[in-house]
Amino acid sequence: MTAQTNPSHEAPFADIVERMQSMLADDLAATEALLVERAISPVDVIPDLSGYIVSAGGKRLRPMITLIAAHACGGANPGTHALATAVEFIHTATLLHDDVVDDSDLRRGKKAAKNVWGNNASILVGDFLFARAFTLMVETGSLEILRILSTASSVIAEGEVHQLAAASRTDLPTEEYLSIIEAKTAALFEAAAEAGALSAGPESAKHADALAAYGKNLGLAFQIVDDALDYGGTTAVIGKSVGDDFREGKTTLPVIIARRRGSAEDQAFWDRVLNVEQQSESDLAHAIHLIRSTGAAEATIREAHAYANLAKAALRTLPDDEWRRALSDLADFCVSRAH
Amino acid sequence: MTAQTNPSHEAPFADIVERMQSMLADDLAATEALLVERAISPVDVIPDLSGYIVSAGGKRLRPMITLIAAHACGGANPGTHALATAVEFIHTATLLHDDVVDDSDLRRGKKAAKNVWGNNASILVGDFLFARAFTLMVETGSLEILRILSTASSVIAEGEVHQLAAASRTDLPTEEYLSIIEAKTAALFEAAAEAGALSAGPESAKHADALAAYGKNLGLAFQIVDDALDYGGTTAVIGKSVGDDFREGKTTLPVIIARRRGSAEDQAFWDRVLNVEQQSESDLAHAIHLIRSTGAAEATIREAHAYANLAKAALRTLPDDEWRRALSDLADFCVSRAH
Repeated sequence: MTAQTNPSHEAPFADIVERMQSMLADDLAATEALLVERAISPVDVIPDLSGYIVSAGGKRLRPMITLIAAHACGGANPGTHALATAVEFIHTATLLHDDVVDDSDLRRGKKAAKNVWGNNASILVGDFLFARAFTLMVETGSLEILRILSTASSVIAEGEVHQLAAASRTDLPTEEYLSIIEAKTAALFEAAAEAGALSAGPESAKHADALAAYGKNLGLAFQIVDDALDYGGTTAVIGKSVGDDFREGKTTLPVIIARRRGSAEDQAFWDRVLNVEQQSESDLAHAIHLIRSTGAAEATIREAHAYANLAKAALRTLPDDEWRRALSDLADFCVSRAH
Repeated sequence: MTAQTNPSHEAPFADIVERMQSMLADDLAATEALLVERAISPVDVIPDLSGYIVSAGGKRLRPMITLIAAHACGGANPGTHALATAVEFIHTATLLHDDVVDDSDLRRGKKAAKNVWGNNASILVGDFLFARAFTLMVETGSLEILRILSTASSVIAEGEVHQLAAASRTDLPTEEYLSIIEAKTAALFEAAAEAGALSAGPESAKHADALAAYGKNLGLAFQIVDDALDYGGTTAVIGKSVGDDFREGKTTLPVIIARRRGSAEDQAFWDRVLNVEQQSESDLAHAIHLIRSTGAAEATIREAHAYANLAKAALRTLPDDEWRRALSDLADFCVSRAH
């Protein structure tokens, strides 16, 4: 399947991930096997809990970025598989800790692990997976990869703490919001792409900066779309996956824009409802109404598109092949979710 | 100060740590500086919370083990200081998470960090320090050190989850208790000593196994003494630092021995009170009475002495100098706390 016979911009977005899964079939199979094998422990709770959240699916977006980045820079190898597994373990560890911190009851459409095994097991199994991620990375034999991922891991925690400290600050500046999501989300996308590139071998170092820029901007686009979807994107269907950020009082981009563009009355509304103790049942519907009527939903999605375009532009120095096209398609896919 | 002029077995135990602090003055100063410098973050909560728990003191036992192990194997260097800091960061991260998991209100004689900044900040700052530990280790330039500490970190988490799963099992076999404390406590002592030895340079690899065995047995002795002290050691003074394990329903060695040696009535007592919901105010005093009257306190301390002796025996292949003597003294110090 080449770019010529199946130009990505004509492919339905839903097919993009499926096509990549087929391009990466062997690599993903190796990674999936490691995701199970490296969570094995004589303490049963660990593989049980880890298997529960890992097998709940998720799109494996971050390991896919690692694998495609490696292919775009010369090819994936067993070290790349170890790295892709490490990236997913780090992501899983942050999900486990996030669910405790946010007190979320659902994750990937299932009960959150903490609602099955308790907060304590979620905290400790998160720690376990985080540690195992580093053991896996040691197997890549690259101190540079370890430096990139350990730095990203501390930046992620910084972003999470920053978000915690900024909670219910309705006057959060856009720049501070961007700095939070760059840390809590984009840092891992960036590290996944950069380290993936480096895992391809010594020749690939010249592409590492481009892949890092790609990953960072893709991560920003991804999180901004996620934050738009939490208010129904531009279609505003209130479903079970809508309103989590609202109920947690998180100030995200749609809110920042809607509040800035709103009347004094609207601003008072936002100032009240982002204090979670002052929310009432009907407030979410009104919040979604304001986000749509002020054009904040559209503006948020446009912002995501801008970062997706930056991600794609960062790829221009890479060889023009199916892997570069796949990375570009992935950027389209990430923003397509919002429509 | 040499072993000849001041034989350790004549030195008062309280002086041992002070003497080591003076032998390691420069190394500890470098480590203390890194403990502050590497917790710096633009997100204020992180250095605030980290500084709170790090500056609360603690004996810096684990970094001291790393530093002395390096000296015993050829000398400490900047990589050793980075490693010693990493070891203390990992320890601090586990303390922060433990306090959330155990819902402990006091740590190092102060309010637990979670009681000042909340559970969420404690979880996330723990994650941050853990990540920073790995960044520090990358600076040692040794994949072997990263392998040892990442493996130890996953083993620690395994031990914590195992302990959680074994909670209120009053019939916990001694071997399973030992396996839990070997994982949750001794693994970091072992890694601190082994990695410290390796940090001294290529010549030192021949001593790594001896230092690993030293660290593991020292860690076992240390935790067993800790568990004895939680019931007042052999002196049974009920103070504010006594009874934490009891109130959390942890089955530790003094309890295992006291229950095994007790009457049917005593066993029924233990089976009731280790279920924390069935404890009453006077139960701790009776528990301490049983642990003393059955000789379980003495037997527990004897077990700790046995491991301390194994730790000291593991040092026999090292050069006979003040550093080997210091490691040996440290083993004496760890068990001396029980008297």
